[in-house]
Amino acid sequence: MLTEVRVFAPATVANMICGFDILGFALEEPGDEVIMRKTSSPGVIITKITGDDGRLPLDADKNTVSACVQFLLQHLGLQHDVGVEIELHKHMPIGSGLGSSAASTVAGLYAINKMLGDPLSKEELLPFCVEGERLACGHGHADNVAPSLFGGITLIRGNDPLDLIPLPVPQELIASVVFPQVDVPTRDARQLIKEKVFLKDAVTQWGNIAGLVAGLFKEDYDLIARSMQDVLIEPTRAILIPQFYEMKKIALENGALSFGISGSGPSVVAITKDRDKARHITDLIQAHLSVSEIESFGYVSAVNVEGPKVLN
Amino acid sequence: MLTEVRVFAPATVANMICGFDILGFALEEPGDEVIMRKTSSPGVIITKITGDDGRLPLDADKNTVSACVQFLLQHLGLQHDVGVEIELHKHMPIGSGLGSSAASTVAGLYAINKMLGDPLSKEELLPFCVEGERLACGHGHADNVAPSLFGGITLIRGNDPLDLIPLPVPQELIASVVFPQVDVPTRDARQLIKEKVFLKDAVTQWGNIAGLVAGLFKEDYDLIARSMQDVLIEPTRAILIPQFYEMKKIALENGALSFGISGSGPSVVAITKDRDKARHITDLIQAHLSVSEIESFGYVSAVNVEGPKVLN
Repeated sequence: MLTEVRVFAPATVANMICGFDILGFALEEPGDEVIMRKTSSPGVIITKITGDDGRLPLDADKNTVSACVQFLLQHLGLQHDVGVEIELHKHMPIGSGLGSSAASTVAGLYAINKMLGDPLSKEELLPFCVEGERLACGHGHADNVAPSLFGGITLIRGNDPLDLIPLPVPQELIASVVFPQVDVPTRDARQLIKEKVFLKDAVTQWGNIAGLVAGLFKEDYDLIARSMQDVLIEPTRAILIPQFYEMKKIALENGALSFGISGSGPSVVAITKDRDKARHITDLIQAHLSVSEIESFGYVSAVNVEGPKVLN
Repeated sequence: MLTEVRVFAPATVANMICGFDILGFALEEPGDEVIMRKTSSPGVIITKITGDDGRLPLDADKNTVSACVQFLLQHLGLQHDVGVEIELHKHMPIGSGLGSSAASTVAGLYAINKMLGDPLSKEELLPFCVEGERLACGHGHADNVAPSLFGGITLIRGNDPLDLIPLPVPQELIASVVFPQVDVPTRDARQLIKEKVFLKDAVTQWGNIAGLVAGLFKEDYDLIARSMQDVLIEPTRAILIPQFYEMKKIALENGALSFGISGSGPSVVAITKDRDKARHITDLIQAHLSVSEIESFGYVSAVNVEGPKVLN
């Protein structure tokens, strides 16, 4: 067993605008970091959390990262033999819609697996990551943990059993991500969504989803742009995001292929095929928000095709 | 201008089981046939219709094939110069769910375009075909006319404007199609469908649609099989189709990748990757129906990648 490992796991954009609950992709940045150290006595403890504004529990039974690490050790029958302490460094805001809890969980599970000499494959780690999401968000969707763990663009065809399909990543796709610092908890954002939808809107949505999948395979950026439109969820969730339609206008007028909500928000994402354009759009949106006295974080990132990685 | 042309246009399987209103594919057989002859005086007339049991109007203003040919001539400004007579030979039953009206319309429009020396591309012919569907069925969906006109598997990403994406056709895909001779008019089958659906079912459906599109690109037959499931429309429409679930059981127990309703039914389709298996499934289903004293037609067909063609 290793004595120490430091792991980064990426933030993710769930839904990929039109694919509610079935699509997600990983970002190069931001992401969370876990430092894990072997301890002399068995058990899992959290020694430090940074970047969470004191919002996450240090109690190892209540913190989802340590809880998932404990589950994994139990699964391997090692809970009485192995002891680790965890430092969790959150480099992105909680409740941002960027898969913050997923990135921490994936980093923790990837770290303990690495410490133990990789007894489990990524495929075998995934159910533990999903369980972490259930603990953190109240629902066990894989649309953040799967892309964070595997990297790339992931289709979750079905949840029972979990059926993950990696999709091709067009080379030039660059995401411009802005997190306006307003609080939209995932639970609330989900509750807003109506239980029933018009079939005609669902048909529009699945036409777009099919178009996006085809566009990714064909590397057809026009088709990707036409397809990344959300007629079902965005109209409801956008209500919770100040300046949403103004930000959308800025993005589309400045060359974004598409613009929408990242996960359950309030982060927003513009998809471009040009890093300079993405940088420009991020800057313009952040400047616009600051006029309305909304602080924000901005990121420019290609799709991360690697997933979690060990840092030196 | 040619003096005579004989054109075949293929039947189609709309929806491709999971892709209600957005997917369709063309069959090698059956299909409809139009014989078109130049006449000395301007105008469009129908001289003969076979295979329709006297159900289609011979009045050229009311028959959708001749009406569409007239539209096309008007569009080209040729209505006062060109005269044609049309024989329509229907080789598939009306109201079968196999795109019967679409095949006739496509054959007619392809024929007049051919007679005139191909002034329009297939892309330009498409709106006239869609208009034919509106006349015939009361709604202008392209999920039968588009695959009949272009061949192959077609995604209709959106209708306004019409956005067609050809999808790859896996080499080994063979359809086993059975039309049980019971009457399910398209209009009634559509009216049964509820205006609103549960979002969770829509998510399942668009996960399957995304999986099917990915499966076609990857030529992954297992993924195609897992994805071709309709949780939304089939439960309602199957009620109108006698022995539906018994036929489904027979197909799946005998090696079909998937089984479902073709278009609005009552035709059913099993997808296989083996022509012998498809033949066997067609035979078994037809034998099962005959025990219940339901007459049927059966077809075994690869995906027709050509669309309409001129016959000698």
